[in-house]
Amino acid sequence: MKNRFAIIVAGGSGSRMGASAPKQFLPIGELPILMHTIRRFRSYDADLEIIVVLPAEQIPVWEALCRQYRFTEPVEVVAGGQTRFQSVRNGLAHIRSDDGLVAVHDGVRPFVTTEIIRNSYETAERTGSAVTCVALKDSARLLHADGSSQAVDRTRYRLVQTPQTFQLPLFRQAFRADEQVFFTDCASVVEHAGFPITLIEGSYDNLKITTPDDLAFAEQKLRTPA
Amino acid sequence: MKNRFAIIVAGGSGSRMGASAPKQFLPIGELPILMHTIRRFRSYDADLEIIVVLPAEQIPVWEALCRQYRFTEPVEVVAGGQTRFQSVRNGLAHIRSDDGLVAVHDGVRPFVTTEIIRNSYETAERTGSAVTCVALKDSARLLHADGSSQAVDRTRYRLVQTPQTFQLPLFRQAFRADEQVFFTDCASVVEHAGFPITLIEGSYDNLKITTPDDLAFAEQKLRTPA
Repeated sequence: MKNRFAIIVAGGSGSRMGASAPKQFLPIGELPILMHTIRRFRSYDADLEIIVVLPAEQIPVWEALCRQYRFTEPVEVVAGGQTRFQSVRNGLAHIRSDDGLVAVHDGVRPFVTTEIIRNSYETAERTGSAVTCVALKDSARLLHADGSSQAVDRTRYRLVQTPQTFQLPLFRQAFRADEQVFFTDCASVVEHAGFPITLIEGSYDNLKITTPDDLAFAEQKLRTPA
Repeated sequence: MKNRFAIIVAGGSGSRMGASAPKQFLPIGELPILMHTIRRFRSYDADLEIIVVLPAEQIPVWEALCRQYRFTEPVEVVAGGQTRFQSVRNGLAHIRSDDGLVAVHDGVRPFVTTEIIRNSYETAERTGSAVTCVALKDSARLLHADGSSQAVDRTRYRLVQTPQTFQLPLFRQAFRADEQVFFTDCASVVEHAGFPITLIEGSYDNLKITTPDDLAFAEQKLRTPA
């Protein structure tokens, strides 16, 4: 089994949440969201090297929360950049291994399952990449420049989630690129570098918590496990 | 103001919900979901003619629920067909007016706002159609026939919701078509008939309740109004 790393990116400010605390620090159940997320990766692999990327000014807040919640999971905390691309690159710079696998995951997706995490690493080990995604539940339309739109075949599209897991050598090479406006996730960076992308099945339960409604849903979900 | 109609389609069996009752009959808060949905349209317009389309075998259950909950909103109940297209067509056949506007809405979207409903009718009156949709929150990928995929510009896509509202003459003409496999919503039917589609802004709150998690979220949402 190759060296395994996880970069957990938690860059939110909480502005969309209408909360004073960054959303990744808001508690669901007994624990801040980000701690739930870290525990999911730790449950998958006790030896996983976990790098948490946070805005620099949030690092002291995180350290205080770890003391308050007696949260002692060993993770390396790294200051993020101005964009997600830069935050991932900062996290990547703290991985000293030349070989292995790295998963990038949103800090505010605390419901990722061990099965998805495992499939992600195993698929990336075999194929180079594993990008978690889900099918569309609704009809979709494509907008044209003139303001018109047309129905598209929704079965041909996937919505992208995390984890997105890659072999380290190709991931490093991809992140040497200049940042592009169309880098909306790691898959788009790796694809831009010319590497193929393998898709794996995610879950609508693997929710990204970004609004007060999402938070309420997450609270409810913790109280009534499936 | 033109004659206004709403066809509320509630064809679910409850199988994805793991419940014995069809999902539109499950209660959230004090009332079955479908009754919440009907009330949203009634709040918009006291004179709106509302047609509820249900599987034939569910109509006696619905009537019993109306007695049980003392639900006396005047609606016309119509038996649905094998597919959504057929169900909408059955609902449409019960509208005797030649002119006016008709909104088609999912029975299991009880959180649609008066603002969205109003915008839907007003836009359709002006342009012929109004299809509610939301921007993508996540990155998206297009699948190719060979199993590969590529990132697409998510800003160019919309996910379609309901209401979908149309001027009656063009809607009738569109629904005279033979059913096609790509008829996944009313917009695709109207577009197939050659009419332009106007998009209006929906909301992620305008949730379609299809899973137990959605139901839990809806319960939570009713308890903590925004």
